[in-house]
Amino acid sequence: MAVSKDQSKEIENARKEVKSTLRATVPGVEGILFNLFPVLDHGFVRVIDYMGNDEAVVQAARVSYGRGTRKLSDDRGLIRYLIRKEHTSPLEMCEIKLHVKLPIFVARQWIRHRMASVNEYSARYSILDKEFYLPKPEAMGVQDTLNRQGRGRSLSLSKSKHILDTLKADATRCYSHYEEFLGLAGEDASFGNGEGPLARELARIVLPLNFYTQWYWKIDLRNLLHFLELRLEEHAQYEIRAYAFVIAGIVEHWLPLVWEAFSDYGLKSVRLSSVEALIVRQLLAGGRADQHLVEELSSGEKEELKRKLGIDVTRRE
Amino acid sequence: MAVSKDQSKEIENARKEVKSTLRATVPGVEGILFNLFPVLDHGFVRVIDYMGNDEAVVQAARVSYGRGTRKLSDDRGLIRYLIRKEHTSPLEMCEIKLHVKLPIFVARQWIRHRMASVNEYSARYSILDKEFYLPKPEAMGVQDTLNRQGRGRSLSLSKSKHILDTLKADATRCYSHYEEFLGLAGEDASFGNGEGPLARELARIVLPLNFYTQWYWKIDLRNLLHFLELRLEEHAQYEIRAYAFVIAGIVEHWLPLVWEAFSDYGLKSVRLSSVEALIVRQLLAGGRADQHLVEELSSGEKEELKRKLGIDVTRRE
Amino acid sequence: MAVSKDQSKEIENARKEVKSTLRATVPGVEGILFNLFPVLDHGFVRVIDYMGNDEAVVQAARVSYGRGTRKLSDDRGLIRYLIRKEHTSPLEMCEIKLHVKLPIFVARQWIRHRMASVNEYSARYSILDKEFYLPKPEAMGVQDTLNRQGRGRSLSLSKSKHILDTLKADATRCYSHYEEFLGLAGEDASFGNGEGPLARELARIVLPLNFYTQWYWKIDLRNLLHFLELRLEEHAQYEIRAYAFVIAGIVEHWLPLVWEAFSDYGLKSVRLSSVEALIVRQLLAGGRADQHLVEELSSGEKEELKRKLGIDVTRRE
Amino acid sequence: MAVSKDQSKEIENARKEVKSTLRATVPGVEGILFNLFPVLDHGFVRVIDYMGNDEAVVQAARVSYGRGTRKLSDDRGLIRYLIRKEHTSPLEMCEIKLHVKLPIFVARQWIRHRMASVNEYSARYSILDKEFYLPKPEAMGVQDTLNRQGRGRSLSLSKSKHILDTLKADATRCYSHYEEFLGLAGEDASFGNGEGPLARELARIVLPLNFYTQWYWKIDLRNLLHFLELRLEEHAQYEIRAYAFVIAGIVEHWLPLVWEAFSDYGLKSVRLSSVEALIVRQLLAGGRADQHLVEELSSGEKEELKRKLGIDVTRRE
Repeated sequence: MAVSKDQSKEIENARKEVKSTLRATVPGVEGILFNLFPVLDHGFVRVIDYMGNDEAVVQAARVSYGRGTRKLSDDRGLIRYLIRKEHTSPLEMCEIKLHVKLPIFVARQWIRHRMASVNEYSARYSILDKEFYLPKPEAMGVQDTLNRQGRGRSLSLSKSKHILDTLKADATRCYSHYEEFLGLAGEDASFGNGEGPLARELARIVLPLNFYTQWYWKIDLRNLLHFLELRLEEHAQYEIRAYAFVIAGIVEHWLPLVWEAFSDYGLKSVRLSSVEALIVRQLLAGGRADQHLVEELSSGEKEELKRKLGIDVTRRE
Repeated sequence: MAVSKDQSKEIENARKEVKSTLRATVPGVEGILFNLFPVLDHGFVRVIDYMGNDEAVVQAARVSYGRGTRKLSDDRGLIRYLIRKEHTSPLEMCEIKLHVKLPIFVARQWIRHRMASVNEYSARYSILDKEFYLPKPEAMGVQDTLNRQGRGRSLSLSKSKHILDTLKADATRCYSHYEEFLGLAGEDASFGNGEGPLARELARIVLPLNFYTQWYWKIDLRNLLHFLELRLEEHAQYEIRAYAFVIAGIVEHWLPLVWEAFSDYGLKSVRLSSVEALIVRQLLAGGRADQHLVEELSSGEKEELKRKLGIDVTRRE
Repeated sequence: MAVSKDQSKEIENARKEVKSTLRATVPGVEGILFNLFPVLDHGFVRVIDYMGNDEAVVQAARVSYGRGTRKLSDDRGLIRYLIRKEHTSPLEMCEIKLHVKLPIFVARQWIRHRMASVNEYSARYSILDKEFYLPKPEAMGVQDTLNRQGRGRSLSLSKSKHILDTLKADATRCYSHYEEFLGLAGEDASFGNGEGPLARELARIVLPLNFYTQWYWKIDLRNLLHFLELRLEEHAQYEIRAYAFVIAGIVEHWLPLVWEAFSDYGLKSVRLSSVEALIVRQLLAGGRADQHLVEELSSGEKEELKRKLGIDVTRRE
Repeated sequence: MAVSKDQSKEIENARKEVKSTLRATVPGVEGILFNLFPVLDHGFVRVIDYMGNDEAVVQAARVSYGRGTRKLSDDRGLIRYLIRKEHTSPLEMCEIKLHVKLPIFVARQWIRHRMASVNEYSARYSILDKEFYLPKPEAMGVQDTLNRQGRGRSLSLSKSKHILDTLKADATRCYSHYEEFLGLAGEDASFGNGEGPLARELARIVLPLNFYTQWYWKIDLRNLLHFLELRLEEHAQYEIRAYAFVIAGIVEHWLPLVWEAFSDYGLKSVRLSSVEALIVRQLLAGGRADQHLVEELSSGEKEELKRKLGIDVTRRE
C-alpha cells in the first residue's frame, strides 16, 4: 500500500509526542503505535490506543480469587491456568483500538463480531477513494468442491489475468460513474453544476464490494481472541485471515504471556467429541476401536480425526 | 416485488398448519404470519415468529414491582408509565423474528444494531440472485447542502433516467461477469468446464452494493423500538426508512398498547436541552428569552427549536 | 417447595386457555408450560414462553448456507454439523422465557451471564417473603483443600445440624427485624404507626444472602447452552447446578436434536492442549511420551488428562 | 473509610512508577490515578486505568464523517453536536477501569448494567472482611408513600439509633457465625481442626446484604454515561447515587468537553411527550391549553410538567 505523504508526516508527528503516564504500558506496543501494517493491496492495520498488559490480566484475576491465588504466585502460571480453565473474564480488562482499512466484503464479515465498537467512514457524508481490492493471481482459487465455502488450487495465470482484468475494468468503470453522479467528472462534466450532484448516499450504491472502507475498531481482549480464533482458522476467507495474521502479531507483542497460553490452549488445541474420546481411549488401551463407534462418525469427522491426532479410522485390516 | 410461485405456495402451505398452544398469541400477527410485505423494488419483510404480547410486558413488570404495582391496575396505564419513565427492561420480554430481503448497502447500516441475532444468506456458500435495487425516479434526490448525509429535492426526470440507466447497465454487466467467473454463463462459456469456476467467495466481489441479500433477523422489543426510533427518523436514509415503516406497522399490530405509548413518549416526544428549557420557561413566564441564552444555541439548534415547539428565537424586534 | 393454592389455581387456569397458532410449537414443552419444577428447598423453574424448535435452527442455517446445504438434507445431520463446527449463530433463533425462584447468592452468580434479559422482583418496591435456603445435611461439604472454590465430603450430621440451626436462627432473627423495620411486627409493634416504616430499600439490607428472590429470565438458545455448559460443570456451585440440571431437562424436551448434538460435541467433549495432543499422538503411534512434553504439564493438567482419556503420564517404569 | 497501611503504601508506590507513552493522556486523571475516593462508610472508587480523552472522541467522529466534518472544525462544537444528536458511537472509543468497594445490595443494582466487564472478589475462593454498611442516621428515611421505591423524610434519631443498633448487632452476629463456620473463631473453636471447615461458598450465605464486596469494573464511555444518567437520577437509591456522584466527578476531570455536553443535552435536558409538547405550544402561542389535552396527562405527568418547565396545568381559573 502506498502511504500518502500526509499520512506519513502525521504518523511521524504523532510518534514524537511522548507523554508521561502512571498507567500500565507495553514498550513493545509503544514501539509500533500509529504505524501502518500493510494488508492486501491497499489495506492496513494500525494500533491507535491500548489499555492493559499481561499484568493487568493477573491483577484482575487476583481481585476475583483474592487470597485464593496465593499459590499461583507466578504470573505465567496464573495466566495459563485462566485460559486453560476458560476463566476468561479477566481478559476483558484489556482493550485495544485499531484503525483498519479493508475491502467492504471483508468489513461485512468482520462486523458480525458484535462485541466491539466501530466508527466507520461514512459514504453518506464523504466520498470514497478510488481504491479497490484485486487479489494476487496466486490467491485466485477455484471453488472448492468439498468445502462449499472455500477455494481450492489457483487458477491458471491466463484465467486469473482474464478475471483480474475484468474486475479492474468493472471497478474502474463503476468508480467513474460514481464520480459522474457526484458531478466530479465524467462525460457529463457539467452535471454537478446544473441540478446539483446526486446524494452521496445514493451515488455509492454503484460501487462493487471490493472497494475499500476504513474504520476505528475497539475491542476487549477476550472478544479479540475469539475473533482471532475464528478468523485465523483455515476455513476463514483468505482476505480476512490476512488481517487476522497481522493482528495476531500485534497481540503477541502486546501480551506475550496471554498469547502463548492462548496458542497452547486455544489455537493449537483440539477438541474431541464424546465418541472420538471413546475411540481414543480404546486405542490407547491397546485395543481397536469398536466398529459401531467408528460408524457414528461422519466422513468429515473421520478426516478431522486424522488431522487432529493422526488416527486413521477408515483403515480396515 | 414478484413473489415466485414456489414461495407463494410455501407460504400458503405454512399458513395452513394450525397448531394449538398455551402461549400468549396475538391474532393480529397470526393473521399476517409468513406473508410478504414488499419493500422497495425487490425487498420484503415477513414475520416468521414472535414471542409475547402487550400483556407479557405487563406481567414482567409486575414481577419486578411485585405488590407495588397494585395501584396501576390498568394494563394501558402501566405500559404508559413504563415507557414514560424509560423502565424498558420489561420490553425485552417480547421478541420477534423477521425474514428480510434488502440491498447490501441497507444491510450495512442495519447490522450496526448489534443487539440482534442474524443469519444472512452467505455468498461464500451460495450464488446470489440477479436482483439489484434501482430507486424510483422520485427518490433520486440531490446531495443536500445543509444536511451532509441527506438528499434534497429530486433530480429532473431526464437526469434521473440517465443515472438509473447507468446503474442498471453496471449492475447487469457486473452480474454477467459474476456468472462468467462462476462458469455459469458469459462469452467464455467453457470456462467452468476446464479449470473449474472461481471460488464463490471471490466471484461476488464484483457485485455492486445495490444487490440484494436476505437474512433472518431476531430482536427483542426494546432493541427493536430503538432501531425504529433511529431508522424512522427523517435523517435516516430513505431506503432503510422504507423497511422501518413496514416494521412499525407490524409492531402496531403486534403490541398496540406498547406502540401507542412509544409513539407518545418516544417517537413524537421532543427533548429540550438545559438552555432550551430555560428559554421556554422564560417565554412561558411571559417574558422574553435572555439574549445570552439564545446566543448559546447553535444555528442548528435554533432551527430545531422552531420545529419542536414553534419558537422562533431568531426573531428580533 | 410448597406451592400456594393461589399459584396452583393460577397455573391450572393458564393451562386451560388453549389458543391456535401458526408458529412453530413443541408439544413436549406445551405439556409442561407454566408448571413448577421444584429446585432446592423453596426454589423453582417454570417455562413461561418459548420461541422456535429444532426445525427453526435448521431453517435459519439454510438461509445462511442457501443452496449450499442441499447435501445435508437431513435435519439431525445439519444440526450436528453446526454444533460440531461451532457455527452457533442459528441457535440464537430460539428463545426461552423462564420464571425462576432462587436464593440471592445463586442469583448473584447467575446474573453474570450478561446476554439475557431479566426482570427481578424488586425489594425496593415490595416486601420479600420469609423464605430462605437451608442446605440438606448431605450438601454441607467441607472446604475442599485442592479446589479452592469447591466443597469436599459432607460434614458429620451433628456438625451439619449445628450449622443449619445457626443459619436458620440467623435468617429467622434477621427476617423478624426486617418486619419490625417495616412496621409489620416485632416488639416495637407501634413502630409503623408512629413515624412510618423504614424505606423498603433500606430495610432489606438486614437479610442474609440465603433469602429467596425471583425473576423472569429470557435468553436465546446459544447463550443458554453456554450457561448450561458452565453451570452443569462439576466445579460450579452445587446450588446453581441444581437449577442447571432442571433447565437441561427442559431443553432436552424442547429441542431433542440440538440437545443430543450439544451433549456429544459440547458437554461430553474433551479438549486437548497442544502439548496434550502431541503426547496422545506419540502414545497412539505406539511409543512413549517425550519426557520434556510431560514436564510441560502442570500437576492439574496431569490429573485432568487421566480423567479425560485415562492416560496416566505420572507413571514411571 | 480507613485505608489500611498496606494499601496506602501500595498506592504510593504505584504512583511513583512514571512511564512514557505515545498514547493520549489526561493529566487530570493521571493526577488521581490509583487514589481512593471514599464512598459511604467503607466503600471507595479508584481509577485503575483509562483509554482516550475528549480528542479521541473527536478523532473517531472524524473517521466516520470524513471530510464531512470540516465545517465543525472546533472540537467542542463537534462533541456538542454528537451528543445533541445522540450520535454516541464515538463515545465508545473511550474506556475506564475502576476498582470499587461497595455493599452487596448496591452491587446487585449495579450489575444490571450489562455492557461492562466485571471481576468481582469471589467469596467462593476467599474470605470476606468484616465490613458492613450502616447508613448515617440522616439517611434513614421512611418509606415514601407516593414513590413506592423511595424514601421520604428521615426517621427520628431515637428510631434511627434503634434500627442501626439492630443492623449492627445482626451483621456482627452473622459474621461471627461466618467465622465459626470457617473454623476461624467462635465458641466452637476446635471446629476447624476436627472435620475441616465448611466450604466458603456455603459459609457466606449467612452474611447479610449490607456486607461489602469489591470488583474491577471496566466500561466504555457511552455505557458509563448511561449508567450515570440512571444512577444520578433522584429516584435511584441513595447508596448507589453516592457512587455515581464520585464517578461523575471523575468523568468531569477525564473528559471535560464530553461532560459539559452530556450535562446540557443529557442530565439537565427535559423530555416532553407529544401531548406535553402540544400543551407547551398552545401556551407559548399565548392561549390556554386545551382541556382535553390536559386530561390526557396522568397526575404524575402533571407534577413532572411543573418540575420540568414550571407549568401548572392543574390550576383552574
